[in-house]
Amino acid sequence: MELISENRAFGGRHCRYTHQSAVNNCKMTFAVYMPPFATEENPVPVLYWLSGLTCTDENFMQKAGAMKMAAELGMAIVAPDTSPRGDDVADDAEGAYDMGLGAGFYVNATQAPWKANYQMYDYITQELPDLIEANLPVTRERAISGHSMGGHGALVIGLRNPERYVSVSAFSPIANPTNCPWGHKALGGYLGDDQSAWQQYDASVLLAEKTHYVPLLVEQGRADQFLTEQLKPEALLNAAQKTDTQLTLNMHEGYDHSYFFIASFIDEHLQFHAGHLGLI
Amino acid sequence: MELISENRAFGGRHCRYTHQSAVNNCKMTFAVYMPPFATEENPVPVLYWLSGLTCTDENFMQKAGAMKMAAELGMAIVAPDTSPRGDDVADDAEGAYDMGLGAGFYVNATQAPWKANYQMYDYITQELPDLIEANLPVTRERAISGHSMGGHGALVIGLRNPERYVSVSAFSPIANPTNCPWGHKALGGYLGDDQSAWQQYDASVLLAEKTHYVPLLVEQGRADQFLTEQLKPEALLNAAQKTDTQLTLNMHEGYDHSYFFIASFIDEHLQFHAGHLGLI
Repeated sequence: MELISENRAFGGRHCRYTHQSAVNNCKMTFAVYMPPFATEENPVPVLYWLSGLTCTDENFMQKAGAMKMAAELGMAIVAPDTSPRGDDVADDAEGAYDMGLGAGFYVNATQAPWKANYQMYDYITQELPDLIEANLPVTRERAISGHSMGGHGALVIGLRNPERYVSVSAFSPIANPTNCPWGHKALGGYLGDDQSAWQQYDASVLLAEKTHYVPLLVEQGRADQFLTEQLKPEALLNAAQKTDTQLTLNMHEGYDHSYFFIASFIDEHLQFHAGHLGLI
Repeated sequence: MELISENRAFGGRHCRYTHQSAVNNCKMTFAVYMPPFATEENPVPVLYWLSGLTCTDENFMQKAGAMKMAAELGMAIVAPDTSPRGDDVADDAEGAYDMGLGAGFYVNATQAPWKANYQMYDYITQELPDLIEANLPVTRERAISGHSMGGHGALVIGLRNPERYVSVSAFSPIANPTNCPWGHKALGGYLGDDQSAWQQYDASVLLAEKTHYVPLLVEQGRADQFLTEQLKPEALLNAAQKTDTQLTLNMHEGYDHSYFFIASFIDEHLQFHAGHLGLI
């Protein structure tokens, strides 16, 4: 991995890296916030943050205001890109914001032309953590969170890999993608028309299958413009109730889908993860 | 003034407004963070934040991570734009980033074509506070801060108007614009070749003239790429020493010119201003 830029922040470091991704078959960029005093002798656990549609590795690091608390807690944060990138990577024919570049949906695509590069599930779950853990002063303790499309990604990845993530959280997640327009378009495009292949990428479906024991925290604004048509957080609650899975869903009056909402509650999510990571 | 957008944040509100500016003779946009529980019966003091080259009202609100502390302290923050805007407003012929649009330098221009619109000193010092204080639940207690070009603006405006601002701070200010390339270009363009007209817009010159009694706090990163050629914070110290003016300059190893630096120390600046505003 190659360092692109480095900024000191809150006594730690914000670094952007590129590397050649084997699973996505392209160059990928990601950002890391490393808290102060993280060394090989004193490695720190990692929170993976998955961003939403149109984002890159930069949005969360610049807008969430998460670094102060991460520095205090001694937690690294890794923010990957939201899709493969590059001139050779397929994009939506009309350049839509919700398919192709910036919209990988954290799935392993099985359909042409996407399957050549869009293997974001394997990238986030395996290749990126392997790279981080081989090259940076971190432990193998991981938590995962994200926003909107990334909230969907965090829930799906956390629920399917409880041995790899100690805690899972989400802001404004696409909670039931088999049942909303964004999900239909993306899952249909990347996975094909057979909806049985979509089920493994729907957090509400996964929650309804069996009791899950990973700690789950979800934040949602009631003034979110996408709440009713795209996000549907009540599907998570209904599914968790069926299987007696513990899940906390906090609904916030007046808050919208923006990073101002994320910033308002990110400290509570970092503390939630820190508790399960043994930091507090 | 007309509301463009509103986001709930940390229990308060982030609002963007436009209004017709009489002094700048164009439509101006600004942002306000209003902390929770600010009402006409419970008005709050205001910190004015002046941004740097290329910025608009959006950069600080999105990237500084200041809202949490402002909400806790009960302080409003107003972030104006960095220049007049619009199709009828003069810009640099080559579209340079350091002259014209996005680069008003917080002066009252006296030279054509700039003087028709570039009256940012009067805008920040008089017109905008008058508007804010007539329309929002704020007191007439004001503090001022800013970054780079805006740090220059905050220092100059604060030093020249101690009856209007209780405290003044700056991040990485252009501390001695009569003596650096950015300053020569902007002051020469807006004010003409007679350098005697520049002196009133140079914080180091103002500091050397007489003892100032307004509290002054300056933050500077030692890894700032503009430190030696453009910023020259030592000129502030030398001038303050001559006139026995109290000024705190904090130099930070490893920090650069970015918003990551501002975010790292903004809470301390808000607390500094809150102390002088009677909030703590």
